[in-house]
Amino acid sequence: MKFWGKKESVDVTKAGRTTVQKNVVSERVYFDWAAATPLLPAAYAAMKPCFKENFGNPSAIHEEGKRAREVVERARSEVARALQVRPEFVTFTAGGTEGNNLTILGTISQLQAKGRSYEKMEVITTKLEHPSVLETMCKLEQLGVRVKYVEVNEEGLISLQNLKKLVTAETVLLSVAYANSEIGTVQPLHSLKKILCEAEKRFKDKVYLHVDAAQAPLWLNCQLDSTQADLLVLDAAKCCGPKGVGVLVRSRRSEILSSSFGGGQESGLRPGTENVAGIAGAAVAIVAAQADWRARAEKIREVRDKGISLLLKTIPQAVLNGTKDDKRLANNINISLPSFDTEYAAVWLDAKGFAVSTKSACSSAGGGESLVVKTATSDDARASSTLRLTLGPESTIEEIKNLSIHLKEWIVLMKSV
Amino acid sequence: MKFWGKKESVDVTKAGRTTVQKNVVSERVYFDWAAATPLLPAAYAAMKPCFKENFGNPSAIHEEGKRAREVVERARSEVARALQVRPEFVTFTAGGTEGNNLTILGTISQLQAKGRSYEKMEVITTKLEHPSVLETMCKLEQLGVRVKYVEVNEEGLISLQNLKKLVTAETVLLSVAYANSEIGTVQPLHSLKKILCEAEKRFKDKVYLHVDAAQAPLWLNCQLDSTQADLLVLDAAKCCGPKGVGVLVRSRRSEILSSSFGGGQESGLRPGTENVAGIAGAAVAIVAAQADWRARAEKIREVRDKGISLLLKTIPQAVLNGTKDDKRLANNINISLPSFDTEYAAVWLDAKGFAVSTKSACSSAGGGESLVVKTATSDDARASSTLRLTLGPESTIEEIKNLSIHLKEWIVLMKSV
Repeated sequence: MKFWGKKESVDVTKAGRTTVQKNVVSERVYFDWAAATPLLPAAYAAMKPCFKENFGNPSAIHEEGKRAREVVERARSEVARALQVRPEFVTFTAGGTEGNNLTILGTISQLQAKGRSYEKMEVITTKLEHPSVLETMCKLEQLGVRVKYVEVNEEGLISLQNLKKLVTAETVLLSVAYANSEIGTVQPLHSLKKILCEAEKRFKDKVYLHVDAAQAPLWLNCQLDSTQADLLVLDAAKCCGPKGVGVLVRSRRSEILSSSFGGGQESGLRPGTENVAGIAGAAVAIVAAQADWRARAEKIREVRDKGISLLLKTIPQAVLNGTKDDKRLANNINISLPSFDTEYAAVWLDAKGFAVSTKSACSSAGGGESLVVKTATSDDARASSTLRLTLGPESTIEEIKNLSIHLKEWIVLMKSV
Repeated sequence: MKFWGKKESVDVTKAGRTTVQKNVVSERVYFDWAAATPLLPAAYAAMKPCFKENFGNPSAIHEEGKRAREVVERARSEVARALQVRPEFVTFTAGGTEGNNLTILGTISQLQAKGRSYEKMEVITTKLEHPSVLETMCKLEQLGVRVKYVEVNEEGLISLQNLKKLVTAETVLLSVAYANSEIGTVQPLHSLKKILCEAEKRFKDKVYLHVDAAQAPLWLNCQLDSTQADLLVLDAAKCCGPKGVGVLVRSRRSEILSSSFGGGQESGLRPGTENVAGIAGAAVAIVAAQADWRARAEKIREVRDKGISLLLKTIPQAVLNGTKDDKRLANNINISLPSFDTEYAAVWLDAKGFAVSTKSACSSAGGGESLVVKTATSDDARASSTLRLTLGPESTIEEIKNLSIHLKEWIVLMKSV
């Protein structure tokens, strides 16, 4: 997986400016890979012809249409091969949020269309989920569906005991993130699936597993059978593909209804002219991400662990949020600095050349504390003082070391105020 | 408005091929601008930095995030200025289909959330609409909303008399296309609005006007007050912008609820990380399309009218579908060849180097007759033999002349079979 040359990909101080003075440009360190990733040059190369000569509508009958259709179907085949499913089970969406909406609403609508009333359906999820899942759950509740939140431990891991208790004959769906976008906790999907399988046997009815894998492709195996998911949602923009494109992968037994209406594109699940260029780029990115996720994860896990040790040592106030080892996403560092307002730390670090965040970008509009850390730890001080570093495949311990020096400086400054 | 050099934009025979032999490449004539348009080089130029150095998430707190946010908000301001609204009334979507869905479902959900039951709501539309409107109407009917279809004449123009009769105290929305995507009929929006205003006075309640303006920006004035719309839907891909991006423009008095759920992006109306590059390109395309729509339309209307005369003269079997003069979209030619299967004509012409269609690409998946022509003319023979030529700003009468020769050839061939 080759990225843009460092200067080009990481230095954003030039963007949008008409003239750049030489030697004034400073090197930036980008530690917010969970929020956005640079586009892979190979993905861009696949998109480019679709912006120029290959501009047709894939539904059109003529040469221009057929060429566009070829691009879309080739992309579908490539994604299908990478995730080990048949192409007809791959649906291109406009991103992870749309994918999660389509999956959750679509599963429930399909069951309702088959005659099961909303009041006879239960969905299980956690309070750690991304807004695109949590907000959709609120919609389900409005419809009359019962939503249950399974307990998690301090590290954000789902309590299997509690899940077993929660599953009833009315449970139709379990919705969880493969890896949490804030604290990086990787859920034990196989153990979850086992509980659902037992429930299916006991109640003689299907319980679907929806896995929001937005954070996964660069660092975890996303082959459908390896995740055990019935419905797997990816977002190209989180794995070096373009923004505005996602993928929903379905198992053979899953059934969903579309929540939008129009032409028959994407087997009727996602109507509207296909985003041909975006789809071409997404496929390249997903294939590249999955091609060497293991080596990439092993390499960066080392940097992460050294970085965590370093931060905890340099900054005695720091507390680690989330899990360790394999149960933590390879590129995720999330610490709390209780009694500090870390939004200011993020701003301070930004001025020093480091892009970090406090929580997920989609939750950030509201400001305030991290619902994820609050749920896991029940500790307000920790929840309102999170700092998230999500590393890229080429991040180094030296970069974290430099960051820690600036962070230490900020803490000293804050204490003296 | 500058397009790609002809060779580059129109010749798609090179696309996806690794080697091209010199002098073998033939010039293509692209007459399917209603289905897809080439991307404007200036739009591409605006997108490019967002694929490279400016890759941040617009909701992120740091420099990379802020730069991405600037791109999105600058694009919003530019679109707002072009359409003469305030930026807060511009929402970026993932395309025209999503825009129409959001508008129709969003208006109804908002009213329902305010306490009006579905059964107490009526929506009026025509049977000529794009699938993204017609299929959404089916969804409304499932919910219990009454959907009424206003009569149109043989040319596809809405019957004002009939509309007056249909509007009742329960009518909440009229949903029409500015210009029909198949036969190019431009609806008299001012007259429609007048009827709605009268109804509003009579029944002391709002009746919103939703205008699907997907086909309009290159050829018609899309300033919100000029369209009289409460909700105006555009699709960047139909006016030389990128695929997968649309715009919903709202009047001050309109109120809609989102139909998808997640982060607070786009004022909560369209959650999910913004497609920054796409939005940047869409803004450039929409601004350029609107900057000189009048001159562009006047020029191509001449070519269209000469083309129509020529086709009707060369091919005596041909019948024109739709209207004339200003009431017909400047770039639209739609004829029927009763008793011929024009899908074969489209394939024949394609082989001869002409990209044409039989109807809208979104309706094409199903094959079969044109519902638009069927509704307008009640003539099965005409409805099942349509041929649509949608011209570009640089199309010429010579190109139509060449096409007519090949079409004539095909007809002779068919008759001899």
